[in-house]
Amino acid sequence: MLGVCYYPEHWSESWWAEDAARMRALGITYVRIGEFAWSRLEPAAGRFDWDWLDRAMDVLHKAGLKIVLGTPTATPPKWLIDRHSDILPVDEKGQVRGFGSRRHYSFSAPVWLAESRRIVEEVARRYGEHPGLAGWQTDNEYGCHDTILSWGPHDLAAFKDWLRRRYQTPERLNEAWGNVFWSMELNAFDEAFLPNLAVTETNPAARLDFWRFSSDQVVAYNRMQVEILRAHSPGRFVTHNFMGLFHDFDHWDVGDDLDLATWDSYPIGFTERFPFSEEEKIRYARTAHPDMAAFHHDLYRGVGRGRWWVMEQQPGPVNWAPWNPVPQPGQIRLYTWEALAHGAEVVSYFRWRQAPFAQEQNHAGLNRPDRTLSPGGREAEQVGHELKALGDLPESHQAPVALVFDYEASWITRIQPQGQDFDYAVMTYRWYEAARRLGLDVDIVRPGAALAGYKLVLVPTLPHVSEAALAAFKAADGLVVFGPRSGSRTRSFAIPDGLPPGPLADLLDIRITQISSLRPGLTEPVTGAIAGSATRWREDVEAGAGVTVEARFADGAPALVRAGTTAYCAGWLEGEPLAQLLRWSAGKAHLPTLDLPEAIRLRRRGELTFAFNYGEAEWTVPAHVVGEPVLGMGAVPPSGVAAWRSRAA
Amino acid sequence: MLGVCYYPEHWSESWWAEDAARMRALGITYVRIGEFAWSRLEPAAGRFDWDWLDRAMDVLHKAGLKIVLGTPTATPPKWLIDRHSDILPVDEKGQVRGFGSRRHYSFSAPVWLAESRRIVEEVARRYGEHPGLAGWQTDNEYGCHDTILSWGPHDLAAFKDWLRRRYQTPERLNEAWGNVFWSMELNAFDEAFLPNLAVTETNPAARLDFWRFSSDQVVAYNRMQVEILRAHSPGRFVTHNFMGLFHDFDHWDVGDDLDLATWDSYPIGFTERFPFSEEEKIRYARTAHPDMAAFHHDLYRGVGRGRWWVMEQQPGPVNWAPWNPVPQPGQIRLYTWEALAHGAEVVSYFRWRQAPFAQEQNHAGLNRPDRTLSPGGREAEQVGHELKALGDLPESHQAPVALVFDYEASWITRIQPQGQDFDYAVMTYRWYEAARRLGLDVDIVRPGAALAGYKLVLVPTLPHVSEAALAAFKAADGLVVFGPRSGSRTRSFAIPDGLPPGPLADLLDIRITQISSLRPGLTEPVTGAIAGSATRWREDVEAGAGVTVEARFADGAPALVRAGTTAYCAGWLEGEPLAQLLRWSAGKAHLPTLDLPEAIRLRRRGELTFAFNYGEAEWTVPAHVVGEPVLGMGAVPPSGVAAWRSRAA
Amino acid sequence: MLGVCYYPEHWSESWWAEDAARMRALGITYVRIGEFAWSRLEPAAGRFDWDWLDRAMDVLHKAGLKIVLGTPTATPPKWLIDRHSDILPVDEKGQVRGFGSRRHYSFSAPVWLAESRRIVEEVARRYGEHPGLAGWQTDNEYGCHDTILSWGPHDLAAFKDWLRRRYQTPERLNEAWGNVFWSMELNAFDEAFLPNLAVTETNPAARLDFWRFSSDQVVAYNRMQVEILRAHSPGRFVTHNFMGLFHDFDHWDVGDDLDLATWDSYPIGFTERFPFSEEEKIRYARTAHPDMAAFHHDLYRGVGRGRWWVMEQQPGPVNWAPWNPVPQPGQIRLYTWEALAHGAEVVSYFRWRQAPFAQEQNHAGLNRPDRTLSPGGREAEQVGHELKALGDLPESHQAPVALVFDYEASWITRIQPQGQDFDYAVMTYRWYEAARRLGLDVDIVRPGAALAGYKLVLVPTLPHVSEAALAAFKAADGLVVFGPRSGSRTRSFAIPDGLPPGPLADLLDIRITQISSLRPGLTEPVTGAIAGSATRWREDVEAGAGVTVEARFADGAPALVRAGTTAYCAGWLEGEPLAQLLRWSAGKAHLPTLDLPEAIRLRRRGELTFAFNYGEAEWTVPAHVVGEPVLGMGAVPPSGVAAWRSRAA
Repeated sequence: MLGVCYYPEHWSESWWAEDAARMRALGITYVRIGEFAWSRLEPAAGRFDWDWLDRAMDVLHKAGLKIVLGTPTATPPKWLIDRHSDILPVDEKGQVRGFGSRRHYSFSAPVWLAESRRIVEEVARRYGEHPGLAGWQTDNEYGCHDTILSWGPHDLAAFKDWLRRRYQTPERLNEAWGNVFWSMELNAFDEAFLPNLAVTETNPAARLDFWRFSSDQVVAYNRMQVEILRAHSPGRFVTHNFMGLFHDFDHWDVGDDLDLATWDSYPIGFTERFPFSEEEKIRYARTAHPDMAAFHHDLYRGVGRGRWWVMEQQPGPVNWAPWNPVPQPGQIRLYTWEALAHGAEVVSYFRWRQAPFAQEQNHAGLNRPDRTLSPGGREAEQVGHELKALGDLPESHQAPVALVFDYEASWITRIQPQGQDFDYAVMTYRWYEAARRLGLDVDIVRPGAALAGYKLVLVPTLPHVSEAALAAFKAADGLVVFGPRSGSRTRSFAIPDGLPPGPLADLLDIRITQISSLRPGLTEPVTGAIAGSATRWREDVEAGAGVTVEARFADGAPALVRAGTTAYCAGWLEGEPLAQLLRWSAGKAHLPTLDLPEAIRLRRRGELTFAFNYGEAEWTVPAHVVGEPVLGMGAVPPSGVAAWRSRAA
Repeated sequence: MLGVCYYPEHWSESWWAEDAARMRALGITYVRIGEFAWSRLEPAAGRFDWDWLDRAMDVLHKAGLKIVLGTPTATPPKWLIDRHSDILPVDEKGQVRGFGSRRHYSFSAPVWLAESRRIVEEVARRYGEHPGLAGWQTDNEYGCHDTILSWGPHDLAAFKDWLRRRYQTPERLNEAWGNVFWSMELNAFDEAFLPNLAVTETNPAARLDFWRFSSDQVVAYNRMQVEILRAHSPGRFVTHNFMGLFHDFDHWDVGDDLDLATWDSYPIGFTERFPFSEEEKIRYARTAHPDMAAFHHDLYRGVGRGRWWVMEQQPGPVNWAPWNPVPQPGQIRLYTWEALAHGAEVVSYFRWRQAPFAQEQNHAGLNRPDRTLSPGGREAEQVGHELKALGDLPESHQAPVALVFDYEASWITRIQPQGQDFDYAVMTYRWYEAARRLGLDVDIVRPGAALAGYKLVLVPTLPHVSEAALAAFKAADGLVVFGPRSGSRTRSFAIPDGLPPGPLADLLDIRITQISSLRPGLTEPVTGAIAGSATRWREDVEAGAGVTVEARFADGAPALVRAGTTAYCAGWLEGEPLAQLLRWSAGKAHLPTLDLPEAIRLRRRGELTFAFNYGEAEWTVPAHVVGEPVLGMGAVPPSGVAAWRSRAA
Repeated sequence: MLGVCYYPEHWSESWWAEDAARMRALGITYVRIGEFAWSRLEPAAGRFDWDWLDRAMDVLHKAGLKIVLGTPTATPPKWLIDRHSDILPVDEKGQVRGFGSRRHYSFSAPVWLAESRRIVEEVARRYGEHPGLAGWQTDNEYGCHDTILSWGPHDLAAFKDWLRRRYQTPERLNEAWGNVFWSMELNAFDEAFLPNLAVTETNPAARLDFWRFSSDQVVAYNRMQVEILRAHSPGRFVTHNFMGLFHDFDHWDVGDDLDLATWDSYPIGFTERFPFSEEEKIRYARTAHPDMAAFHHDLYRGVGRGRWWVMEQQPGPVNWAPWNPVPQPGQIRLYTWEALAHGAEVVSYFRWRQAPFAQEQNHAGLNRPDRTLSPGGREAEQVGHELKALGDLPESHQAPVALVFDYEASWITRIQPQGQDFDYAVMTYRWYEAARRLGLDVDIVRPGAALAGYKLVLVPTLPHVSEAALAAFKAADGLVVFGPRSGSRTRSFAIPDGLPPGPLADLLDIRITQISSLRPGLTEPVTGAIAGSATRWREDVEAGAGVTVEARFADGAPALVRAGTTAYCAGWLEGEPLAQLLRWSAGKAHLPTLDLPEAIRLRRRGELTFAFNYGEAEWTVPAHVVGEPVLGMGAVPPSGVAAWRSRAA
């Protein structure tokens, strides 16, 4: 199904009814509203103005649209900040981050928590049982503009409480963090401090705990909103719109409190921002990199425990990347179908009409500012017709491959990269890409999730292996392939007794005795099951008797080892060597693969198989793969989509 | 005529008379003094020491020199800052910018305005009618070291007043800025805030107004000084020495209050700083880029409404660029003649003698610290002799080409580049260069200036087209060529109703429906009147019936359109495609052109034509161009100058 | 002899005895302890806990180890900072640098000086006459993490006192600094200010004095510790562990107060950080650049007036460079022997065992965290055996070449680079490298040191030539070769009367009339004794009658001049042209040279000659050089060492 984001407060009321009618004509079912409207709902402290929103919701409802209402907490108004300036967050340099845009609050400011409770209750009470209301969105894009970690006095106070609860005594904290090093020991929790603005780097264990604390604050804040909404709005779902490429808080934890996950998909802007090579950035500038949307679809399907939407779908050029080209014609349709192929319940475009004013005036909508469909709007209209013709889509199945994605792994490797280019986002993305280039569907799962039924489990790295994660790996059915640094840290950010991979040694009898980070230009040649070179990172492995060495570095040391269904790769791989690792893994896991062209991706939804072409050359679906045509012909044009029903199914 | 900048307070009084005599011998008429001497004129609050300056002015006057006296407000002394530290400006990060160099004041600090009035009056009263006094310079280089925008409490207070005057009610401000977006609405002007230090980007309309306000503060500050000087110093001119490459305030507005404009010409340092390619920076490192000085000459001729000087002419290597090579021998003479060719009344060198101490000790003078002429000094001496031989130079005429230069255009595109490399300074420079490479003289004019008599009007971009600008375009005689983004914003930084180019649609029936900013590596091929590729920027144009498409993008969309004498180019052009646009434009405008080598430039002053050679190869003036030799021979050597009288004239 | 750094407080007391025994077995004589242990020695204000250290020292002593005890002032504990937060330093941007790592103190905070005195006295009194105690280390790595210059109120107060003492009257300060320029004059010392946070650059003379002051504060602080230690600990040496590549304070001055110098040698990390070309960084990533350790050995031999150690020797990969590869096998042994060849009394590894917690957990030790020798530990063990077999090493002799190294030269050229890439560290390093590539031993000496006995004295640059330095040059026996900018500044950071090279004109009748800094891509071809090009910097020289021009720039101006035994090079040279300058110099100085491959270095210690191979190819010692084998064979393998006894000796 399709949806759209709409801002009745931005337009003349006289346009609302026509807008709603045109939405329906386009095939749109859901409309999200309200998430930035605090200053219109409560223009001054305690003075509410509901009338306009009452009317807007009635217009939309009467047109047959289902409403998703956002709580307006992402934009506290000026009068509130003027009364309580300690709501404002503080950046890592100690500078207060002021009013003037959005997300100007600290998750730890007591007055902000009270004000959030107040406004969410007011909105929930007013609209919780509105007949047009389908569900709620809490806040907007937690973490956008680097707003998870705040470094002010309220944050410190809350962190002290968190530490007190976690460690009980300062001695246990000192012991856990290794504070004896450099005389950093604390005599009381009141001596605790934020790990910023020191002379040189602060204790990584302290930094990890501060990140965990900050993530927990987001979880608690969101849960507070969810509980209020559920209390006042029975039968409606509650979701949050996550973003792409944000790793600053644990999305799995926030997802636990939601009915479904949604995310905001801007594949072209994300491609410009991601650390791709210049050559890739140019090649995919107008289409987005072929895995950019898909990776997040698979991630948020996991976060939503199977239920997820795209809440904001890029509808044309945007305004916020370093460069913002018009997408290649066909791409808006492609993105929409791709989300559906990955199991989205709804794809909702941002936004109905381009705003001619304020910060996002260069962000396209389905409509131009002059109330005419934009090219993206016309592609959405086409999908609307195609969806109508196709009827209900089948259910998604579990994929054959699981990729374990861990937010703590991101924090740990950012706190302590050891090599400047050890980037968890890149690493997980490249492993995912390599699997998808083999035509494989992938589920992205959290550490500790049950791994039953997966033929292949990819763990690009998992520095801290919790007991739950270890248990899940032990119980896995398929081949589990770990990348370097897995098991290299305890919960307290220490090297495990007995060396890395710590608890994973239960599965695979190896020890990592030395690590090398490799500047660009340094390579570590590998031969055996993988032929090529590691870059960025290499480990020295001591392997026990039961371990098979599948590939070796030039000095003879193991590069890839295996014992039964557990494998460990001791170097950073990318490009062709990484493709070989994935091919080797799929082979060991008895997974049939395809060698897709680099710009082609496949995805199954039930008995349907979809193909997406991010390249410049037409692609003909191989005869042994293709089935009964459902969408498009046998040949998939550039920026085109095809779908077919499996013959066997 | 020639001039020089002199600091009697830097040298032993015993040297003054000899210095003055040597100036006269060199052919120097004007001497500028006093602009940094506050701590010597008023060593402590209210205690003045005029004697030394009395004597210095008498010495200079008796030697036959005409004096330009600077008001000393660019360097408030330490005792004043210690008494009133709120004079200090605040940077965009909120950090106070302290004492220790110069320009350490906010244009909005009330005590600073009072102190400025006081010292200017004191100086004006003392020397206003000195017989040696020819004119005044207000302050020194407004905007140098990024000092236009200040972000402190006084600035905010003055900005609130400015907003109150402009908008009358908060509702009108909210409406104009689109503050409903992200709940940024204000209930009162006292809630207004500076558009810095927010979580993410602030409202572009607010930022534009803050820039306008800041520019207005400079204008008001300068006018205050001008009025005092005029009151106490009848018959003397008042000027200000502008800088190169500064766009932070509206120089046209400041120029309105002056008798003549002057500017400080450091072509080599500016070349090092300008975003040229590395290859260009190397090629022109010792000569400066051939349009660097000329562009500013033509700009400040406009700002001075025809009357202008070079107040500070680079005399050799300087100290402030990332690298500071000795200019190629001949360049100081070339710069001087070039300024004269563009219509300068006076070329005044900075400075008489290199100071062996303090911040600028590596800045050359006409004399070395050991009181010997430097190489630059010897070149100045040569010009002095040549000028004497030549007698009075003829008047400058209006050029056939006008280029519209707009400071707001710079602010708008910096506030909202949309593509990281959309740089107004580069764009206007490259259009100017392309015209000058065709041998054309160019006047740089402000938007709204009368365009009568110009055969060709170039508007590289003009996002906000005021009513006055529109009227001038409508009344233009010649072909008017607009670049992309022209007419794309209202006065309130919004997309115009009916889409861009907004009011320009009166002249040319087009609509811009989509914009693409293009990362390096992306190109948009063009064919037709222009063959090549657009880079950086491309627009989608819908053209009405009466519009001729002169060139098209590869997808068939218009790249260059024309209706009558109005043309619009929908892409960023540079290099050969831009040269083609200019050749096409000159052709349509019936302007004869030359294809000059890239390092050669011509310029007419009355019946004289000058040629300047910034390259390494000798250049022979084409036979059909050359006239009766006035300066140099037929062949212009590297770093050389030639001039001839038109045979026809 | 060998040593090691040990942290008993990091490990279970039950491990101490075994650790000590294993140290002895490895051939280790010295053990450094205690320098970060304040929070364990004084867990709360005035409450001391000596017992653990008493026991640790006894265990080590009983095992036969000699103890070096560090004063713990590099890590003031949290309780102290909480009581006296004004101890904290302030960065140049005005931000307080907080607790959480180390070196969080200002050398000018009165309470810090008192607290330092107190803790040093306590420790000195407790352990000053411990039978196991061999010596003391003051603090740890002055200057690490950019901690010499602090910009807070205490620093300003102390700077005012320093200025008062130096200048007596504000008039003399104004005169010395040239404060008349830009009205910077002060009426009283209380008006003095720190040279940061101004609108643009501050007076270079002020900045130089602030740097001198800051260096003097370090010297005074260290002297205070030394005096306390000497008073309470007769017969023990006092040293400090300097770092590599730190130039922010005058190490010569600190060295004057020490019995011997030590330094912390991390050749691979320093190679990654030094501005080598990318190509060199890759080539030497796993070995370190061949002069990185040696340069510092020769420097600190000078600072220690002949007596020096490596206090911390890199034992494997570290944690703090942008990338941290495992050293090539053999390098730890090579580094150790190289230090000994350059005259080190002791090479002490950092650290005994890798810490599995806190900031340096990825820093290797001689032992892995699991109490097993690391590869570096095994190489140290090998050196231990080799040393035992070899017996006492002979004394070092004076080298034939002296290189004058001046910390003020570093400050002056950083304050006023004039060309962005004029880097004193690079310049001195490259001159040193060029000499060493010719097989020459080099002593690094301070300006003013006696130069008797040196056949060749290299002065890459010495902007300020003091009277002492001038006298030493006049008294030199050998050829003295000056690089550009020598003699270009007075003590007050002014251009000398009569132009540069100021006082050096006594030795060589030249004047520098103009300077050019050259951006990358600009070159100044040279012919004559040197053939090639200068880059980065070129000067125009006027030479008197008695001066021989040995090489010329393309315009005929002198590039290399000489009068008797004084030569001056007027351009920045590197690579082959610099090699030619050194060859020419050695020729004039009658010094025999070798042309070593770029990765090979030789060094004599008494009658022993050592060879070190930093490359990938085996090197065969030339027959005319080699002597009786002492270590290794005739051919030196990659990462290998050889030594032989001179046949003649």
